[in-house]
Amino acid sequence: MGGSGYSGEELVRLLLSHPHAELGAVTSRQYAGQTLAQVFPKFAHHPRAKELRFSEPKAELLGKQAQVVFLALPHGVAAEFAVPLLQLGCQVIDLSADFRVRSAGVYKEFYAHDHPAPELLAQAVYGLPEVYRAQIKQASLVASPGCYPTSILLPAIPLLKAGLIEPGNIIADSLRGVSGAGRKAELDYLFVECNESVRPYGLPKHRHLSEIEQELSLAAGAQVTIQFTPHLIPVNRGILTTLYLSPLKAPGEAKGAVGLGEKIAACYRAAYGSEPFVRLLEGKALPDTKNVVGTNVIEIAWRLDPRTGRLIVMSAEDNLVNGASGQAVQSMNLMCGFPETAGLI
Amino acid sequence: MGGSGYSGEELVRLLLSHPHAELGAVTSRQYAGQTLAQVFPKFAHHPRAKELRFSEPKAELLGKQAQVVFLALPHGVAAEFAVPLLQLGCQVIDLSADFRVRSAGVYKEFYAHDHPAPELLAQAVYGLPEVYRAQIKQASLVASPGCYPTSILLPAIPLLKAGLIEPGNIIADSLRGVSGAGRKAELDYLFVECNESVRPYGLPKHRHLSEIEQELSLAAGAQVTIQFTPHLIPVNRGILTTLYLSPLKAPGEAKGAVGLGEKIAACYRAAYGSEPFVRLLEGKALPDTKNVVGTNVIEIAWRLDPRTGRLIVMSAEDNLVNGASGQAVQSMNLMCGFPETAGLI
Amino acid sequence: MGGSGYSGEELVRLLLSHPHAELGAVTSRQYAGQTLAQVFPKFAHHPRAKELRFSEPKAELLGKQAQVVFLALPHGVAAEFAVPLLQLGCQVIDLSADFRVRSAGVYKEFYAHDHPAPELLAQAVYGLPEVYRAQIKQASLVASPGCYPTSILLPAIPLLKAGLIEPGNIIADSLRGVSGAGRKAELDYLFVECNESVRPYGLPKHRHLSEIEQELSLAAGAQVTIQFTPHLIPVNRGILTTLYLSPLKAPGEAKGAVGLGEKIAACYRAAYGSEPFVRLLEGKALPDTKNVVGTNVIEIAWRLDPRTGRLIVMSAEDNLVNGASGQAVQSMNLMCGFPETAGLI
Amino acid sequence: MGGSGYSGEELVRLLLSHPHAELGAVTSRQYAGQTLAQVFPKFAHHPRAKELRFSEPKAELLGKQAQVVFLALPHGVAAEFAVPLLQLGCQVIDLSADFRVRSAGVYKEFYAHDHPAPELLAQAVYGLPEVYRAQIKQASLVASPGCYPTSILLPAIPLLKAGLIEPGNIIADSLRGVSGAGRKAELDYLFVECNESVRPYGLPKHRHLSEIEQELSLAAGAQVTIQFTPHLIPVNRGILTTLYLSPLKAPGEAKGAVGLGEKIAACYRAAYGSEPFVRLLEGKALPDTKNVVGTNVIEIAWRLDPRTGRLIVMSAEDNLVNGASGQAVQSMNLMCGFPETAGLI
Repeated sequence: MGGSGYSGEELVRLLLSHPHAELGAVTSRQYAGQTLAQVFPKFAHHPRAKELRFSEPKAELLGKQAQVVFLALPHGVAAEFAVPLLQLGCQVIDLSADFRVRSAGVYKEFYAHDHPAPELLAQAVYGLPEVYRAQIKQASLVASPGCYPTSILLPAIPLLKAGLIEPGNIIADSLRGVSGAGRKAELDYLFVECNESVRPYGLPKHRHLSEIEQELSLAAGAQVTIQFTPHLIPVNRGILTTLYLSPLKAPGEAKGAVGLGEKIAACYRAAYGSEPFVRLLEGKALPDTKNVVGTNVIEIAWRLDPRTGRLIVMSAEDNLVNGASGQAVQSMNLMCGFPETAGLI
Repeated sequence: MGGSGYSGEELVRLLLSHPHAELGAVTSRQYAGQTLAQVFPKFAHHPRAKELRFSEPKAELLGKQAQVVFLALPHGVAAEFAVPLLQLGCQVIDLSADFRVRSAGVYKEFYAHDHPAPELLAQAVYGLPEVYRAQIKQASLVASPGCYPTSILLPAIPLLKAGLIEPGNIIADSLRGVSGAGRKAELDYLFVECNESVRPYGLPKHRHLSEIEQELSLAAGAQVTIQFTPHLIPVNRGILTTLYLSPLKAPGEAKGAVGLGEKIAACYRAAYGSEPFVRLLEGKALPDTKNVVGTNVIEIAWRLDPRTGRLIVMSAEDNLVNGASGQAVQSMNLMCGFPETAGLI
Repeated sequence: MGGSGYSGEELVRLLLSHPHAELGAVTSRQYAGQTLAQVFPKFAHHPRAKELRFSEPKAELLGKQAQVVFLALPHGVAAEFAVPLLQLGCQVIDLSADFRVRSAGVYKEFYAHDHPAPELLAQAVYGLPEVYRAQIKQASLVASPGCYPTSILLPAIPLLKAGLIEPGNIIADSLRGVSGAGRKAELDYLFVECNESVRPYGLPKHRHLSEIEQELSLAAGAQVTIQFTPHLIPVNRGILTTLYLSPLKAPGEAKGAVGLGEKIAACYRAAYGSEPFVRLLEGKALPDTKNVVGTNVIEIAWRLDPRTGRLIVMSAEDNLVNGASGQAVQSMNLMCGFPETAGLI
Repeated sequence: MGGSGYSGEELVRLLLSHPHAELGAVTSRQYAGQTLAQVFPKFAHHPRAKELRFSEPKAELLGKQAQVVFLALPHGVAAEFAVPLLQLGCQVIDLSADFRVRSAGVYKEFYAHDHPAPELLAQAVYGLPEVYRAQIKQASLVASPGCYPTSILLPAIPLLKAGLIEPGNIIADSLRGVSGAGRKAELDYLFVECNESVRPYGLPKHRHLSEIEQELSLAAGAQVTIQFTPHLIPVNRGILTTLYLSPLKAPGEAKGAVGLGEKIAACYRAAYGSEPFVRLLEGKALPDTKNVVGTNVIEIAWRLDPRTGRLIVMSAEDNLVNGASGQAVQSMNLMCGFPETAGLI
């Protein structure tokens, strides 16, 4: 539902070529009646795209046909559709922010309106497969993470869980391509306004902090508040996040002591060594968005700075794939018992 | 000298239209014999560009003709030319790193070779007009600052001088356009390798740290070591720097106490309120490289984060103008007694 | 009047630094009450930009203050303002299409509404200084040419006047940056829709054909109909036009005869050898938009193809400067008796 | 062989995920010994990319292992490897220009050196599946077409075969992304030199004319000489070609007579109605490179201009896929008896 935005379009791309899924319906008020091929010429060589027409977003109709429904709708709207779909027995994967935070109060603080379906918050699973794989397999409602959160949580959570960094001293500096702003006709996102431009925005209290801090706190076992600065950069896709972290010295251990590097390496290997979509970079390699665009992969590299004692961790992902639709399809694979990487490699 | 790189080209642009300077010679081994108009068609409508030919870089010849000589040469090479030019009585403005650090030992640590003219280090003035205006006016040798250093020093120095931030807890996250890498035929800087790509590089010990930390230490009155991460982004020009700073509580004052914002605002107003090229942003405005490209202006904005207690300061400049050639022309204006903004507004 | 679009913004830039003009007022319904510095931070270092506020577009008020008024308004709207301004004795330079065609019928055919002030068409001068310099000097109403027309007319007119090409066999293939579409919040011009995209549009009967064919016909002394295909390319600024032309053999002369090249070279030298803003490229040089962006220059190069007998002429200009605001300022210079290049080099 | 350029990299991408092919070896002098995952991080999530190492280009070794060998080598070099590979019984698909022209004399005229293996020219099949499908199925040596030629031949050949256009009056104006210049460390292709730049080059006698005119002549049944102007535009991938054509009036038929549009539509439908990778656009749609990038599809649209009588045909393709590696894989599918679209949809 909501197949005309950038995330919806990317979902369509992935589902059209998925070996185990059949794209049964796509909704869009704006394009209702037109075929996928008409609205997205780039898909027109898929036979299915010539037949399938956008339909009006009617939860009841869809709920009876579909096993899994993806919601690529604005926050607030998504929750309204989730309720009837779940009642009709669908598995729902929501790409909006509506079910990402566990507390209706936090939701209201960050999204400035009452939560439309607070009774569902308890059953929603945060759709980060590397952290919640088991829960996603059992879930009927998955809240697929935001793009910035994914780029911050995957590099930070293992370090927090292992007690290797100070939970109270995390800075995330993120750079994101323009597709992250959505397909909206606004002056700020015109080509001429974005090309040859780099700019911070939305600081210091960006909405995504609600889910980021929730998940970091769960990993740390304590309330975590972080610093987060997003920047808009002139690329279509991609997020590059640089994390500034303070290693925790073990009791009686000198800061930056020998062995810290080994601990970090071991921590990441343990967490992600067999994850299909997390690429731990080695040697001199550093993340580059061009190496992940179009894929469900997140690249992670880290450096200890002996001069400052800080740990710098960098990640790169495609905000529309690993940061949105790819990750959502990965959740679908888990929920439906498909191979986890189906349609994603 | 060295007029064929991006900084040299920008110097040529500024000097061609400078009301009080006459561009007497431009050197380039590669283009010797060709006119400016042939090598840089974009300047061909300036009458001077049709006459003036690139010449071989001969210090003696130039030194006898010129009052002021700009060196836009690689580090190491620049110092070799500076020696004879100064002996011939020229005022020298060096855009390389050769005279930026005061210690030949630090130079060797960061540039990996012995300093070619250590005897000149004591007389060189660091060409940051907002900080060393009086000294530049008297200088015969000015070391024009690096592009990253300018974007970090101008926002940070007033706060350090005023004792408003912890000197030991400074993080600088910088994003720079590709012209900063110079006009070099290397695979990494091909269009296809940079377009639709964002990547960190050169961390954690970038060469520019030598001059950044020297100047921050002088401002703080104590040795300062900072965290610095440069990133390459797909724009021709521009640097966007985001500084993460920790406000210092005055003795007996609560962190984030009422009044801190006023102090910061007052500090910046006092430092830059009458500076012609520092634009302190107000209200909701945030820096954007597109607002400074082609100009000698640096934009600065700041935000206090009540959730974390941190101070975020952001700056935007054109790496080739305020971060290189514009700032060098500003120094020339000061050295020659011209109006400081001549040829720059 | 109409200072908030891309052409208006460029006019403001040029007039702020013009040595003989004072920017007395700028109008914009949307930004009325705000200073230039607030709306266009990039101009904020000009002292005038901090004082001057956008005002409501009131022709009477402006007409009493101003000597020259530029109209950077949508077509149809511009003509309505021109009438009272001319009555109040202003010199009017209109950047819209309203006064470019001499026939109200042609205007209606291409712009799909009646001309709002047909009585003024006879007195308007087409503001192409290289062709109508003498008339512009005497004009009270100048219709500044469109961006595409300038890029086609300047290379084609001398050849037509000299009888060197067939008037009935002209093809113009043009590539234009996105600023040409104006500052409009439309999906088609979002960064993500334009970046990594190249596309033709508006063929085969683009509005600009009305003025292009009018002026080519006047040069040829016969009705000329041309082929014109515009394309949108992902740059902010610039037009690159490639003209495909058929040389006319003189009676009794073989096609492609020896001497044709000399005739073409002589024709262009005679037409443009002393024009300050037309750069005839020599040797192997070909036009490149990056060499003209930000300047009032148009680059022109040509090649005879001995295999086909055709003449290929290529031009490059900045659609906002030589194709709009720069050319308009050049007209102002002529109308006011200033040096023609004042404020433009 | 030659897996480190942009075409080679794209071949690797397609073959890694091809359902019926196994990528057995990849050669590169420069990267010999390194894994695919090390050289191309973007492929590192394919299990095969972690094992497979670049090897030295040794035809004998490869020829014994492989059934099909792709040559993504410079022209002149490719032919030298083709000889032993064919002798060892391999099927060879050459992406260079070495076997595209049937005449060694034409080759020498356009490539300025003697053909290295003229004896093979007679057996080579030009790898345009839409035209030579039957021959490709039987071929042992396929000369995969150039990127520009594909974008011109596919739209033009059906019209020539049907006698709908004048063979002697064809103009092709093409715009190509920077990857077409190859992964070469040259100043002209640096990011800063290409970004915000548009420029023609290589006219009027580009090398690709040799194969374009050969194939157009075969389609027309007469010698065809065309006008061709390539332009470099700042995108990574994509070619947009605009063809200017003159419809042929049937004897006794008026130019532009009623029915011409129907004939053209019927001609294209007959030629491409069931082609999997040719997308004939309908209604108001026009080609856009962003709709084909990453796919093996070519988009084609056409307009008759009633004012000039000309036919304008436009095509868009990805120069690295349909214009190079995708088309080569399509040939492999035909040669090996796989479904023609295998690995390409």
